[in-house]
Amino acid sequence: MSWVGIDLGGTKIYAVVFDGTKVLAEGKAKTPVQGGPLAVVDAMAAVVRELGPLEGVEGVGVGAPGVIDPNDGTVQQAPNLAGWMEPFDVAGALSSALDDLPVAVDNDVNVGTLAEHRLGAGKGADNFLGVFAGTGIGAGVVLDGELRRGPTGAAGEIGHMIVRRGGRLCGCGGRGHLEAYAGRASMERRARDLEHKGRDTILVDLAPGRRMTSGVFVKALAAGDAVAIELIDDAVGALGVAIASCVSLLDIALVVVGGGLADRMGPSFVKRVEEACRADVFPRNPDLRIVPAALGDRGGSMGAALMAAERLSGAVAP
Amino acid sequence: MSWVGIDLGGTKIYAVVFDGTKVLAEGKAKTPVQGGPLAVVDAMAAVVRELGPLEGVEGVGVGAPGVIDPNDGTVQQAPNLAGWMEPFDVAGALSSALDDLPVAVDNDVNVGTLAEHRLGAGKGADNFLGVFAGTGIGAGVVLDGELRRGPTGAAGEIGHMIVRRGGRLCGCGGRGHLEAYAGRASMERRARDLEHKGRDTILVDLAPGRRMTSGVFVKALAAGDAVAIELIDDAVGALGVAIASCVSLLDIALVVVGGGLADRMGPSFVKRVEEACRADVFPRNPDLRIVPAALGDRGGSMGAALMAAERLSGAVAP
Repeated sequence: MSWVGIDLGGTKIYAVVFDGTKVLAEGKAKTPVQGGPLAVVDAMAAVVRELGPLEGVEGVGVGAPGVIDPNDGTVQQAPNLAGWMEPFDVAGALSSALDDLPVAVDNDVNVGTLAEHRLGAGKGADNFLGVFAGTGIGAGVVLDGELRRGPTGAAGEIGHMIVRRGGRLCGCGGRGHLEAYAGRASMERRARDLEHKGRDTILVDLAPGRRMTSGVFVKALAAGDAVAIELIDDAVGALGVAIASCVSLLDIALVVVGGGLADRMGPSFVKRVEEACRADVFPRNPDLRIVPAALGDRGGSMGAALMAAERLSGAVAP
Repeated sequence: MSWVGIDLGGTKIYAVVFDGTKVLAEGKAKTPVQGGPLAVVDAMAAVVRELGPLEGVEGVGVGAPGVIDPNDGTVQQAPNLAGWMEPFDVAGALSSALDDLPVAVDNDVNVGTLAEHRLGAGKGADNFLGVFAGTGIGAGVVLDGELRRGPTGAAGEIGHMIVRRGGRLCGCGGRGHLEAYAGRASMERRARDLEHKGRDTILVDLAPGRRMTSGVFVKALAAGDAVAIELIDDAVGALGVAIASCVSLLDIALVVVGGGLADRMGPSFVKRVEEACRADVFPRNPDLRIVPAALGDRGGSMGAALMAAERLSGAVAP
């Protein structure tokens, strides 16, 4: 018995066939930037078709960015997907495009956290926080062994926790949010802004007219670029502060940090976040551990398959 | 059937006999500042004796400051009680002093939150946060109808959430914590410091050689004192930021604000906190409400009695 898991990202669609232990097939495609939700659904269906015959596949899980209605799986809005500002029934549309295979949808960060909980760095932990730092930042909150989605599905919006009152402007319009310091998109905005104001940096040269990827930050950091060092320092500090606040509020002793930025930066980045955080947690908890996610790029799609298996087979949801 | 509830505070011990609906008797005494835990237990026993004959009383609940071990009710440490730096078995000692009446102990903020949940402004809410701002600041976290204490009993330490990275020094040694801006003790420290540096304020005159109570801040504010206005503005802003972070993380739509400072300041203070918070919450939740606690000074002792009733009678704990 196997399940298709799809990680729907702002730039790419990544899909696997997963039997709960092994990835049996995988494929990817660019996320369409035109055509809105319908084009995205068509692209997802095409990737799934390319995985091979769907015999033996019980259903499909999608991890999507944005706020997902926990009751019906509707994607309410997905600011990182072009033209997706209205609620859309992804499950219904994708199921129609795939000969009525059942489809379940959840938030991308939630399925990433689920995968780390079942198979990765959070395996066996009753209480932990899965923090994913990429273009934006989100968290999955596992309490007493269960993923907490919250009454409106918005739990875990750690990217918009405030680390500095009145601080740097966030993409959402708020000020001093974690994402304004440690989200890749905000870091790129800040880098271009600093260069425009006369600061010397290779960050912009490394990403001329295209997205400043996490890999670009890693390269500039390795080259000793002062602006990159400053931006990464800010990101580490902000992640430390926000995670410390979560730990203080929820009495959690394990935090798993993944996502594009953390994955590319490597374990030393997560180690620095741990050090920054430890100083700020009250009461001091000697058992607190902040560790890198174990599943990397494939965690999201594997988690989407696990989520589908648990939801669609009638087993207890995570 | 009735229960004794004791609110053990840094300055006073407040006790009630409570039948779950009506307060049948009440009494109070100063909290001893010498003699450590044993003197405090003796003082609690004396207040209980003065409530009248204990026939019909099924047991005693204590809401104590500090970190309480959720398994055995030991008070691990209570920084706001003099000479109490080691774990102490309050339940055992108080029970011995009261003819072996059963005694249950929980954190003061948890029992305050329980009272608001059962009888006050959080009545019937499945998910809410009880925030108590007094000498220090703590919160009770109710998720899916149950109070969340956390694996080590330290959940709800909202006073040490960070509202401004690298900001004002907190009593715990950390920086930029909520309590450093909105805890009465820190506000007093700051007021004396500003006066010492030459700022003109009546706050110090109103509290010569004694504690600068919440009432003193209310008086100075009413008199238009610039330092008091500034300190209260900071407290409102910091509470708004910390509560917004909690709401973003946990997807909670109701926050009840109580404690000495909020109670004395009145509903307009809580209204200002709501306004400060609303601007910072993501995603915007039109249903978010921040309201004053309903039970005032007696909430803690009533909650302690409710906690004892639920724990000692074998009913489901909150």
